[in-house]
Amino acid sequence: MSPRKPVLRGGIDLGGTKIQAVVVDGKWNVVGSSRRPTPTSGGPEDVAEQMSEALKDAAGEAGTESGGLRGAGVGSPGDVDTEAGTVSQARNLPGWAGRFELGPWLSDALGTAVSVGNDVGVATEAELKLGAGRPYDSLIGVFWGTGVGGGIILNSEHWLGRGAAGEIGHMVVKTGGARCTCGRRGCMEAYAGRAAMEIKARKKHEGGAKTDLFKIMEKHGRDRLTSGIWGRALKAKDPLATKLIDRAIEALGAGIASAVNLLDVEAVIIGGGLGVRFGEPYAKRIAKAMKPHLFTDDNPPAMHVAALGDFGGAIGAALLSANHRPDTAAKRAGK
Amino acid sequence: MSPRKPVLRGGIDLGGTKIQAVVVDGKWNVVGSSRRPTPTSGGPEDVAEQMSEALKDAAGEAGTESGGLRGAGVGSPGDVDTEAGTVSQARNLPGWAGRFELGPWLSDALGTAVSVGNDVGVATEAELKLGAGRPYDSLIGVFWGTGVGGGIILNSEHWLGRGAAGEIGHMVVKTGGARCTCGRRGCMEAYAGRAAMEIKARKKHEGGAKTDLFKIMEKHGRDRLTSGIWGRALKAKDPLATKLIDRAIEALGAGIASAVNLLDVEAVIIGGGLGVRFGEPYAKRIAKAMKPHLFTDDNPPAMHVAALGDFGGAIGAALLSANHRPDTAAKRAGK
Repeated sequence: MSPRKPVLRGGIDLGGTKIQAVVVDGKWNVVGSSRRPTPTSGGPEDVAEQMSEALKDAAGEAGTESGGLRGAGVGSPGDVDTEAGTVSQARNLPGWAGRFELGPWLSDALGTAVSVGNDVGVATEAELKLGAGRPYDSLIGVFWGTGVGGGIILNSEHWLGRGAAGEIGHMVVKTGGARCTCGRRGCMEAYAGRAAMEIKARKKHEGGAKTDLFKIMEKHGRDRLTSGIWGRALKAKDPLATKLIDRAIEALGAGIASAVNLLDVEAVIIGGGLGVRFGEPYAKRIAKAMKPHLFTDDNPPAMHVAALGDFGGAIGAALLSANHRPDTAAKRAGK
Repeated sequence: MSPRKPVLRGGIDLGGTKIQAVVVDGKWNVVGSSRRPTPTSGGPEDVAEQMSEALKDAAGEAGTESGGLRGAGVGSPGDVDTEAGTVSQARNLPGWAGRFELGPWLSDALGTAVSVGNDVGVATEAELKLGAGRPYDSLIGVFWGTGVGGGIILNSEHWLGRGAAGEIGHMVVKTGGARCTCGRRGCMEAYAGRAAMEIKARKKHEGGAKTDLFKIMEKHGRDRLTSGIWGRALKAKDPLATKLIDRAIEALGAGIASAVNLLDVEAVIIGGGLGVRFGEPYAKRIAKAMKPHLFTDDNPPAMHVAALGDFGGAIGAALLSANHRPDTAAKRAGK
């Protein structure tokens, strides 16, 4: 046993509903974790405050303080400038249309260097380096949750295009089809995204469709249809929930198959709130829904559920702190 | 003026309807060309024989013999093994389900080293290195002809995935939609491929739809609806031709936008028989049809028509002969 103090790093996954913080050791094992709801009012500083508190709690659980971390990373929605550590246009977060210096703010609050990356990007890299993607050089990560995000790994590197690549949720699976939360029509996310499914479920419910989705929601003290609510409704064979999830799986099958026809990657990894909760049986259903659309259907890609589960985004954020320009990040934190 | 004999290379584009051969000089200028119809009966040797004759004619026009070429390349449909120079499963070519040693056969017949590559791949590389793609590191080549092929360039390299990448024509634009010539439903090619459009046009015509498409075809002594026939019908404002091409453009818009949402490339290059014939005005129409589906619609990719036109595939094939493992290829030809 080495008497040296272990190297610990922090990671924060900033989601539209929750903030997940972890502290990991040198082998990327989670040695502390904490979760908080994302504020639904206020502004970026209120969100950053909760992020900071969550990571401090996780550090405490790991027997240290945030200032004792070798560094921390954040996986954030919105437009992320990794150089400056800023986030703008985070539309699912309160009062966050403008640009906020999230990295520098957190570096000050936590007393350690903080790097900021794209949420889907860091989760995809985490699966590639530590999770279900380890055996592969090329894969598509599909994050099935409130929306449907995509992370593309080619030649073991994250493909970003001109900065906006990976919008697999906005591939068109039905020209002139359902209205998406993005305003467009026929996107995969218009059928499979939790937000779009909830809008559809409310409409159908108001129109008289039989469902216990909203009863289950109220019973669990929620104000939206979380992955857990959907899971419970499916277990109870709720007819509307079953129908909408079947429809989502058809759309995921067509959209992911289209992406595979274009890129011919080795593997597809299904993550995100719904993907992780529904797990292996649903990954198999998605694979089956892809089959009729795959051009080389005798050689489908491997299908996996994200191995790091709910912690994937936060662990990926911690990875970012180890890989991402440590000099500049450290300088920013005054170390 | 240098008294040295110029370095000349040959390129052959093997298509389902025609064989295009060129001879290019060291600056890739076409100094000889020849075109022949692709045999519609017989087997691979009959096709290879016509390819060989076409390149010999092109060499003659360039003032040399095929044996005097520094090498030659072929862009072929079907499954290409570039190492062995073999082609199999070329379903649009007569009797070519099995494996045929096209490269070695042509090397013997022509007396020069012959490399074989994928038709869409060599055409995409030609546009990247010599054509409309020169300013870009990432692009998608869309070859709009009998089918709709795709060539993907990322980081200035042709992305092949596990060997089958680029099937942009078989991205799903309408789940449960039109039957594709591949047997699947709702593929972009089911709406935009010339073969699929001809099947649809015949059905509509038999069902009483008003069109001069088949009159024009007969008048020009053709037995199928070539790009030229479609072009003439559109010029004459033929109602069915107009409707089917509008439908094709909608599908191309949705499918190409989906690919751009996924990859966020710098440029899209429209080639292929229909793409090159219809040119700039139709590239603009496709760009307009993409717009409602583009996720970052304030930053669309540049749109270009393939600059090398009908010769692109053959010039790309000649490029292949210069780049592709010259040692082995030369060895194969006994040089």
